[in-house]
Amino acid sequence: MKKRLFVIAAIALLLGVFMPSFIAAQDAGDAVSYTKAEVDGLLEAKATTDSTTMIWMVVGAALVFLMQAGFALVEVGLTRAKNTANILMKNLMDFCLGSLAFFFIGFGLMYGADKAGIFGTDQFAMLGIDPADWAGKMRDWFFQVVFAATAATIVSGAVAERIKFKSYLIYTVFLSALVYPVGGHWIWGGGWLANLGMHDFAGSTVVHSIGGWAGLMGAIILGPRIGKYIEVDGKTVVRAIPGHNLTFAMLGVFLLWFGWYGFNPASTLNGNDPMIAHVAVTTTLGAAAGAAAAMATAWAWFKKPDVSMSMNGALAGLVAITAPCYAVDPIPAVIIGLVAGVLVVLSVEFFDKVLHIDDPVGAISVHLVNGIWGTLAVALFAAPGRLSGNLENGGVFFGGEGSLAGLGVQALGVVAVGAWVCVTMGVLFGILKAVGFLRVSKKEELQGLDINEHGADAYHGFQHFSNM
Amino acid sequence: MKKRLFVIAAIALLLGVFMPSFIAAQDAGDAVSYTKAEVDGLLEAKATTDSTTMIWMVVGAALVFLMQAGFALVEVGLTRAKNTANILMKNLMDFCLGSLAFFFIGFGLMYGADKAGIFGTDQFAMLGIDPADWAGKMRDWFFQVVFAATAATIVSGAVAERIKFKSYLIYTVFLSALVYPVGGHWIWGGGWLANLGMHDFAGSTVVHSIGGWAGLMGAIILGPRIGKYIEVDGKTVVRAIPGHNLTFAMLGVFLLWFGWYGFNPASTLNGNDPMIAHVAVTTTLGAAAGAAAAMATAWAWFKKPDVSMSMNGALAGLVAITAPCYAVDPIPAVIIGLVAGVLVVLSVEFFDKVLHIDDPVGAISVHLVNGIWGTLAVALFAAPGRLSGNLENGGVFFGGEGSLAGLGVQALGVVAVGAWVCVTMGVLFGILKAVGFLRVSKKEELQGLDINEHGADAYHGFQHFSNM
Amino acid sequence: MKKRLFVIAAIALLLGVFMPSFIAAQDAGDAVSYTKAEVDGLLEAKATTDSTTMIWMVVGAALVFLMQAGFALVEVGLTRAKNTANILMKNLMDFCLGSLAFFFIGFGLMYGADKAGIFGTDQFAMLGIDPADWAGKMRDWFFQVVFAATAATIVSGAVAERIKFKSYLIYTVFLSALVYPVGGHWIWGGGWLANLGMHDFAGSTVVHSIGGWAGLMGAIILGPRIGKYIEVDGKTVVRAIPGHNLTFAMLGVFLLWFGWYGFNPASTLNGNDPMIAHVAVTTTLGAAAGAAAAMATAWAWFKKPDVSMSMNGALAGLVAITAPCYAVDPIPAVIIGLVAGVLVVLSVEFFDKVLHIDDPVGAISVHLVNGIWGTLAVALFAAPGRLSGNLENGGVFFGGEGSLAGLGVQALGVVAVGAWVCVTMGVLFGILKAVGFLRVSKKEELQGLDINEHGADAYHGFQHFSNM
Repeated sequence: MKKRLFVIAAIALLLGVFMPSFIAAQDAGDAVSYTKAEVDGLLEAKATTDSTTMIWMVVGAALVFLMQAGFALVEVGLTRAKNTANILMKNLMDFCLGSLAFFFIGFGLMYGADKAGIFGTDQFAMLGIDPADWAGKMRDWFFQVVFAATAATIVSGAVAERIKFKSYLIYTVFLSALVYPVGGHWIWGGGWLANLGMHDFAGSTVVHSIGGWAGLMGAIILGPRIGKYIEVDGKTVVRAIPGHNLTFAMLGVFLLWFGWYGFNPASTLNGNDPMIAHVAVTTTLGAAAGAAAAMATAWAWFKKPDVSMSMNGALAGLVAITAPCYAVDPIPAVIIGLVAGVLVVLSVEFFDKVLHIDDPVGAISVHLVNGIWGTLAVALFAAPGRLSGNLENGGVFFGGEGSLAGLGVQALGVVAVGAWVCVTMGVLFGILKAVGFLRVSKKEELQGLDINEHGADAYHGFQHFSNM
Repeated sequence: MKKRLFVIAAIALLLGVFMPSFIAAQDAGDAVSYTKAEVDGLLEAKATTDSTTMIWMVVGAALVFLMQAGFALVEVGLTRAKNTANILMKNLMDFCLGSLAFFFIGFGLMYGADKAGIFGTDQFAMLGIDPADWAGKMRDWFFQVVFAATAATIVSGAVAERIKFKSYLIYTVFLSALVYPVGGHWIWGGGWLANLGMHDFAGSTVVHSIGGWAGLMGAIILGPRIGKYIEVDGKTVVRAIPGHNLTFAMLGVFLLWFGWYGFNPASTLNGNDPMIAHVAVTTTLGAAAGAAAAMATAWAWFKKPDVSMSMNGALAGLVAITAPCYAVDPIPAVIIGLVAGVLVVLSVEFFDKVLHIDDPVGAISVHLVNGIWGTLAVALFAAPGRLSGNLENGGVFFGGEGSLAGLGVQALGVVAVGAWVCVTMGVLFGILKAVGFLRVSKKEELQGLDINEHGADAYHGFQHFSNM
Repeated sequence: MKKRLFVIAAIALLLGVFMPSFIAAQDAGDAVSYTKAEVDGLLEAKATTDSTTMIWMVVGAALVFLMQAGFALVEVGLTRAKNTANILMKNLMDFCLGSLAFFFIGFGLMYGADKAGIFGTDQFAMLGIDPADWAGKMRDWFFQVVFAATAATIVSGAVAERIKFKSYLIYTVFLSALVYPVGGHWIWGGGWLANLGMHDFAGSTVVHSIGGWAGLMGAIILGPRIGKYIEVDGKTVVRAIPGHNLTFAMLGVFLLWFGWYGFNPASTLNGNDPMIAHVAVTTTLGAAAGAAAAMATAWAWFKKPDVSMSMNGALAGLVAITAPCYAVDPIPAVIIGLVAGVLVVLSVEFFDKVLHIDDPVGAISVHLVNGIWGTLAVALFAAPGRLSGNLENGGVFFGGEGSLAGLGVQALGVVAVGAWVCVTMGVLFGILKAVGFLRVSKKEELQGLDINEHGADAYHGFQHFSNM
C-alpha cells in the first residue's frame, strides 16, 4: 500500500538523520558516560547550594516554557478565527523544531568556547561535556532553550495571517540555530559586547529585541495583510482588523506575566541570590505601571480604556523591566513601566498609521521598541553598587561616574544586535520571497490559512465571519 | 495636534506623580542604597535556610498571581458575552492599580510599625528599609501583594455586568490602599486581633471575607442586573442568567485551585517548615470534598449534577480550608470541605431566591460565607498542639481547654473585620452611587458594557445573543 | 466479534514478541533493587536537604495537578460543543472523587506494608502514621495523588461523548481506589515487579498504560459514537467527527507539557538529585521530537501538517519519555520521541480505520501505545551506570550485559499490568453495561450530554451545530 510506504519512508528518514549522531554519542561514550554515584560524589560537598539553584532554575524554566502558551493565546485572540489553527501550529512547532535546532547547533554557538568573541565552537548536541559538568550543563541548557524559544515565537505575531507555514518553519530553525545564538553569545556567552560591559540581565535585548527585529523584517518583507491599508482617492485608509477572542488574548497576557516570574527572577542563575524577590518586585511594578500608563494614554487619546492597548501595556512594561529588573530599585521600576506603557501606544499608532507596517498583534512595539527602552533604562536608572563596570556607581540619573559611557555601551549593543538580526533575517526572508515561498496566495489568505494550510476548522460547528 | 498634546499631558501627569517620590528615594539614598556584596555578606551565614524560604515564597507568590487569571475566567465564563471585555479589563487593572496602591500605601499600613494595633505607619513605597532587611522585605511584599490583589478581585464577580469601569477602578484602589491593609493589619500585621490570639493561617478572613464583604456591599448598593428579578402579578420571579462559556469557567477553577497550592502551603512563610505538604494535603481534600458535596447537594435538590454549583463547591472548599489548613488533620479537612460544599449551594439559593441579592458568579457564597465558616472551623477542628494560645490544646471538637474562648476570638474577628469592611465600602459605594457614578445606564447595560465602556467586541466575527 | 479479535491480535502482536525475553529474565533472576526505605534512610540526616525535597515535590505535584486542566481542555477541544459541560464535569469530579478514594483506600493499597508483593495493607486514610514520618508521608501522598488522578483522567477522552456521568463516577472511584493502586504497588510500592527489577521512572506503565488500558476497555465495551462508523453497501465508512475548539485543545497540550516538568523531573523524589535538569532536558527533547515526527508523518501521509496529530505527537513523545527520562541521554531521548511521533499517527489510524475502536481524542494511541513503547525503550536505550540491576551496564543498544533480561522484565511488566487492568476494568464496564447503566440513550447522545445529563448549555448565546 502507498500509505505504508510513506510511513516506512518517514521512519527511515527520521531515524536515518539521528542514528548517526546516536552512534557518535556512543563512540564518545567514555566522555559522556558516568555513574550516578560519581556525579553524587562530585557534587556532594556543595550539594545544598547547588540543589537550591537546580530546582530554582528548573522551575523558572518551566514557567518560561508556559509563555509559549501565552504567546499563542495572545496571537490567536488578536487575529481572525480563520487563521487560528495555523497560529497554534506555528506556536507549537517553533518550540519543537527550535528546541531541536538549539540542542544540535544553537547552544554550542551561544555558550561554546570561543576566542574572537563572535560565536562558540563546541558543546553541539551536548557532546564532549565533562561528566563533572553534566548536571550544570543540563540545567543551563534547559534554562536557555526556553529563552531561545521565546525569541523565536515573538516573530509569529508580527507575520501572522499571511506567512506560509513552511516558510515559518524554515525561519524558526534559522533563528533558533543561528541568529539568536550568535547575538546572544555577544552579550550572554562571553562575547565582545559582554567584554565591553553591556548589561542585559534577563534579555530585553537578547530575547525581546532579537525577536522584535526579526518580526520587523518579516512584517516589512511580507507586506501588510490584504485589506489592511487601502487606497481611496489617492489616500491610504488604515483599517482595523479586530481579533476574534479577547478572553484568549487576556489569558495569554496573564500566562505571559506569570511566566515572567521565571524569566526575570530565575535569571539570577542562582537559587541563593538574596535579590530574587527584588527582581520579582521590580517586574511586578514595571508590568503594573505599563498597563496603567497604556490604559491612561489610550483613554486620553481614544476616549476609551482600550483592551488590547492595556494588555500590550502590561507586556511592554514586562519587556522594558527585563534588562533593568536587577539593577534598579522599585520606584525607578515604576517609572520605567510608565514610560513603556506610553511608548507602546505611541509606537503601535506610529507603525500602523504612519509607517503602514502591518503588525497584527503589536509585537514590534512591545518587544522591539520596549526592548530597546529597557536596555537603555539600565544605564539611566541602575542603583549605585548594583552592577560592575561603567555602571558600578549608578546610572545617569544617579550621576554615576562612567554612566554615560555605560549608556553608550548599551546603545552600541542595541545597534549591533539590530544590525546582525536585520541583515541575517532580511537575507532569509528576502530569499524566501524571491523564490515565491514566503507568503500564501491571495485566495488562501482570504479563505484563511487554516483550511488551506492545515485542512482544519478551528471552531467546527460555530459560525464565524472573519474575512475582515 | 490635539492627540500629541494629550499624550504629552498624560506623560507629564503620570511622571509628575511619581518623580517626587523617586527624588525622595534618592534623598533617602543613604538608607536605601547598598551593594550586592553587603547584602551577600549579611545573609551568608544563614544563606541556605533563607534561600529555601526565598524561592519557596517567590514561587508560591507566582502561583497566587496566576489566580488573577482564574478569577477572570470564572467571571467571564459565568456571565454574558457582551460584558467580556469589561470583565477582563477589571481583572487586569485591579491587579495593576491595586499593586501600585499596595506598594505606595497599603503595605505600610498593613505591615509598618504601629503602637495601637490599628494600622502601620512606615515602609510606604519601601522607603527607609534597613539594607539588611531588604531581601526579606522584598520577598514579603511580593508575597503579600498577590494576596491583596486576590481580595480586590473577588469583588469583581459580585458587581459584574453593571458597575461603571471608572467606579471599579476607584473601588479597587481604595480597597488595596486602605480597607484590605487595615483589616489585614489587625490579624496578620501584629494588630489587636493578632494580640487576642486570632488564627487565620492563609486568609479565610483576611483575604476571602474582606473581598466577600466588599462584594456584598457592592451587590446590594448597585442592585440587581436588569431582568434578574421581575415583578409578575405582584410576585417576584427570579430568572437565571446563564454564563456564556463553561470551559472558560472551569479552566478558571483549575487555575484557582492550582494557585491555591501557593496560597496555602506557601503561607508557612518558611521554606523549611515540615508542614508544607500537610497544608497541601488538607487543601486538596477540602477542595475535593467541597466539590463532591456541592455536586451531591445540587443533584439531590435540582435532580442534575449542576456544573456551576460543583465548581463553586470546589472553590468553597478551598476558601473554607484556607484558615484551618495548617491546624487541622486530613479527616477534619474532608469534613470542613463537605460542609463548605453544602453551604455554598444553600447560600447561593438563599441570596438569590430569598434575599434577591444579585451576585452573578456566587462570589459572596464562596468567599464570604465560606470564609466565615473556615475561620470558625479553625476553633472547632484544630488538632492539639498545632496552634498557640487558646487553641493550643485543640479545638472544640477535641475538647481543648480554652477552645470555646478561641472560638469566640475567631467569631469576634469575623464580626470586627466585617464591620470595618461594610462601613468603609458602604460609604464608598454609597458616595459613588449618590453622585451617579456607580452604575452604567440602562441602555449601556442592555447593549453590554464592552461596546459602551471599551469600544470592544470580545468575540468579533461570532454571532452571540446575550441580552438575557 | 471481529473487533474483539482485532484487539486481541493487536495485544498479542505488540506484546507476545517479548515473552521469550521474559523467560530469560526469570532465568537471570537475581535483580538488584533497593527499597524506598533505604533511599529514605540515606537522606534522613539533614534537615536542609529535606526542605529542598519538600518544596521540590510540592511544587512538582502542583504542576502535575494542573495537568487536570490540560486533559480537560484537550478533550473539550477535540469533541463536540454539545458535550462540553459533561466533559468538564468528568474532569473535575474524577480528581475530586478520585483523590478522596485514593486518600481513604488507594494510597494504603499502593504504599502500605505488604508481604506478598501484591498490595499494601495499612496507612488507609493516613491513620496510624508514626508522627516522625508525618511530614514525609504527607509529601508522598500529595505527590502520588496527582499521579493517580492523571491515570484516571486519561480514560475520560477514550469514553467521551457517550458514557453516562454516573457510570463515569463509579469507574473513577474504582480505578483510583483499587485498579491503579494495586498495579502501581507492583512497580512503585515495592511489589513483585519492583523486586524483579522493573524500571518505570515516572510512570509510562504505572500511570499512562494503566489509564490507556482502562480507556481501551471502556471504548470497546461502550462501542463507537453514533455516526462514527456507518455501513454503506456492506462496507464500513469511517467518518471524522471534528472537535469544536482547537485553541482549547492546544492550550491543553501546553498545560500538559508544562505539568510534565513536574511529572518527570520531580519523580526524582529528591530535590538534591543532580539529575533533575537532565530529566527536564530529555523530557523536552522527547516531546519536541514527538511533535516533529508526528507532523512529518501526517504531512507525508495526508498532505497537510495536521493539527491534532501534531498535538498528539507532542503528548506521545512526553508519554514515551516518561519511563526512560532519567536513564537515557539526550540523543536517545530524541530518537524515542521520533519513534513515538510516528507510532501515534500509525496507531490512531490503526485503531480508527482498521479496528474501528472509537477513541475521540486518541487517548489509547497516546497513553497506551506510547506508554508501552516508553517502558520498553528504557531497556533499549538506558545509558551504562544509570540504573541498577539488569540494566546497570546499559540497555540493549549499548550491548549491556543482562540488558535482554532487563527488556524481558519491562515487557513482563507491560503484560502483567495490562492483564490486571483489562480484567478488572473489563468486569466493571461489563457489569455496568449489563445492567444498562453504562451508556446514555441514543436520543441523549444525539442531543448532547450537556442538556440531558447536566441541564447545561456550555456556550449559551452562541449558535453551534454539533450533531456531526
